[in-house]
Amino acid sequence: MRMLDLITKKRDGFELTKAEIEFIVHGYTQGQIPDYQMSSFLMATYFNGMTDQESTDLAIAMMHSGDTFNLEDISGIKVDKHSTGGVGDKVTLVLGPLVAACGAKFAKMSGRGLGHTGGTLDKLEAIPGYNIVLDEDAFKAQVNRIGISVIGQSKNITPADKKMYALRDVTATVPSIPLIASSIMSKKLASGADAICLDVKVGNGAFMTDLEEAKKLAVLMVQIGKLAGKRVKAILTNMDEPLGFAVGNTLEVIEAIETLKGNGPKDLENVVLEIGAYLLEDAGIASKEKAIELLKSKLHNGQALEKLIELVEAQGGDSNYIKNPSLFTKSTQVIPLKANKSGYIESMTTIDIGLAAAYLGAGRETVDGVIDPAVGIIFHKKIGDYVQEGDVILDIHANQKGVKDALSTLEKAIHIGTQKKEVVLIEGVIL
Amino acid sequence: MRMLDLITKKRDGFELTKAEIEFIVHGYTQGQIPDYQMSSFLMATYFNGMTDQESTDLAIAMMHSGDTFNLEDISGIKVDKHSTGGVGDKVTLVLGPLVAACGAKFAKMSGRGLGHTGGTLDKLEAIPGYNIVLDEDAFKAQVNRIGISVIGQSKNITPADKKMYALRDVTATVPSIPLIASSIMSKKLASGADAICLDVKVGNGAFMTDLEEAKKLAVLMVQIGKLAGKRVKAILTNMDEPLGFAVGNTLEVIEAIETLKGNGPKDLENVVLEIGAYLLEDAGIASKEKAIELLKSKLHNGQALEKLIELVEAQGGDSNYIKNPSLFTKSTQVIPLKANKSGYIESMTTIDIGLAAAYLGAGRETVDGVIDPAVGIIFHKKIGDYVQEGDVILDIHANQKGVKDALSTLEKAIHIGTQKKEVVLIEGVIL
Repeated sequence: MRMLDLITKKRDGFELTKAEIEFIVHGYTQGQIPDYQMSSFLMATYFNGMTDQESTDLAIAMMHSGDTFNLEDISGIKVDKHSTGGVGDKVTLVLGPLVAACGAKFAKMSGRGLGHTGGTLDKLEAIPGYNIVLDEDAFKAQVNRIGISVIGQSKNITPADKKMYALRDVTATVPSIPLIASSIMSKKLASGADAICLDVKVGNGAFMTDLEEAKKLAVLMVQIGKLAGKRVKAILTNMDEPLGFAVGNTLEVIEAIETLKGNGPKDLENVVLEIGAYLLEDAGIASKEKAIELLKSKLHNGQALEKLIELVEAQGGDSNYIKNPSLFTKSTQVIPLKANKSGYIESMTTIDIGLAAAYLGAGRETVDGVIDPAVGIIFHKKIGDYVQEGDVILDIHANQKGVKDALSTLEKAIHIGTQKKEVVLIEGVIL
Repeated sequence: MRMLDLITKKRDGFELTKAEIEFIVHGYTQGQIPDYQMSSFLMATYFNGMTDQESTDLAIAMMHSGDTFNLEDISGIKVDKHSTGGVGDKVTLVLGPLVAACGAKFAKMSGRGLGHTGGTLDKLEAIPGYNIVLDEDAFKAQVNRIGISVIGQSKNITPADKKMYALRDVTATVPSIPLIASSIMSKKLASGADAICLDVKVGNGAFMTDLEEAKKLAVLMVQIGKLAGKRVKAILTNMDEPLGFAVGNTLEVIEAIETLKGNGPKDLENVVLEIGAYLLEDAGIASKEKAIELLKSKLHNGQALEKLIELVEAQGGDSNYIKNPSLFTKSTQVIPLKANKSGYIESMTTIDIGLAAAYLGAGRETVDGVIDPAVGIIFHKKIGDYVQEGDVILDIHANQKGVKDALSTLEKAIHIGTQKKEVVLIEGVIL
């Protein structure tokens, strides 16, 4: 087999076999296939796409390039979720304890935030003492014992994907649905869960800004998952404004705690209930309708919050912060952003809201950037809300860093007009 | 300017500016743009093509990457021709002396053969003593004095094209009309002639096997030449069988000598007359009709052959071989290939005829292969000719090397059937 022939085959629109895709992934990871051949292959793939089978073979080949978790020792159906990333997305913090409280086994490896999007690991680390590093045995033992663990990704997960992504980033081959889908699914498959619900964010704060493209991505990821033998569903959720009211690590943990008490923002709760219901269904715990009822009951009877406390304690965190969120260190300044005219909040440039939070220290520009857990933004008004001139739209929670940049960015990111708009939160479901 | 943005621009179908193309060519030649970005750019170009202006800017930028010849010191209009390569293509050997005998200034840098195609330099070197290396001053002085010089290409001509071609060769980005056209024209423009006639070979012995694709290439090359300020025409000539009867270096030189005496194969003579007439027209020497008459007269009055003798003597060759071709060293064996049945020669697999000649030593597989000038093939029958079973179709002129392979290849390359087919020699003209 020669890489040149495989580039030609893809260039000319033919379907590659599983063996050919394995040859490419293995050869590239081992350094036998040079970057310049891989990049022309990736560009040919950008133009000619991949079949569902090719995308699945690619995901599986990338999965096998590194460590994979075998969760068979854990009793029952192991569930996982994945978000394509957004602003104020603290779904995992609520969903994980909630579905675990319902009897599902929530075994999740999470990532850190980069650019305008936050990351679950950074949020968990806002809880003093929370340890994101567990080895495979400890991880599995914990999920068996309390039904949940959320840890950082193994360094050696899908090295092929890491190498390919770095190359795509500098060769204009990132925006390819089959390549994006394979990349995400390679990591999900390596994590070893049986049932996965994908949360594909779509809107001006998401990686996918176009609904049709986001649907294609969701459909393909579900298809890859199924072809790989998993139970996979996807929902498409709106990211034209932040999810919930809080953006920033501690602020989001506190909002997650409130949501686990049944006092959370409706949009956040609804996304959690929708994903949670699909996971409980796929775990064989309840039908979707019954699952919604079960999930709601756990939010109101304290068991969901109790599960978060268990999780934090199991991973070395100080659960007093969960029981009494006022213990969390607060930022030194709270600066309100007031409406400069009356009217409805018509839209937000959500990516800029994420960037504003990053300027304050809530996010990082490069992978080695340091996070300030206390800072962020609390919204008081969102799309569709009416504001009088002078009303506080949001509060900036800041320490020393980035206040001026964040303020000027946020001023431009919130658009007040005459129309009362409504955000459709759940834009689609792929079963 | 960032290469990533330019790859994206080409990927998304936009036209690059002259400055952007210069940035790419310069940056790649200097090693500032890595192979992996160039190869994804080339694949994006394969899919999205280039406008005529982009192709011209690319050809000119590649031309400026290395040495360029300034032929202004030579009086009159300097003419040049280029063939895209075929089997038995000895046009330059006849055309150059002929148009020089008519008063044109024929200033040509030629290449060597590779694979199944021959190269003019190898044919000239079959003439004992002929020196293909002249510096620019000597080259120009000779063209000024006798109207003709044919030398090897400068080593430092279009290094950008050399580097890009090597990359295209291993990244499945060779068959792109704009890239092929720019590559050829960069070298032609660097050679400095005022008027150029391109001989685009089409057929199963040519680089372009499809007439429509060959036409596109010819049209684009003519357009690039015109946009670069040159007088350029192209003809499309058939390569579904070898041109003339001889394949192999000495054998082709002898056939060229016969043609310069007016005794050549009709197909070869016709291609020479057609190209010659366009060059004389562009050189302002005669209208096309008058040019044909003038060219024919020179073939019959001895002046064309005399010009070849002058050329050979000027470049250190022994002109006795031209005056008396029986002096040329002959191969040790002549092996006839006989018809295994009666019928018409319906077709030939011309690429395999070229390869068979290469097996004998007439061509080379790699750039440092050694040529045996004496070996090759002489055809006695071509497409449309009737053969009786046992008639000699061709003679293989061989020394030790490759006889068996050549014979078995040639047996399969000649197809005898019941239909009398006719080859249309000149398949198109682009003015």
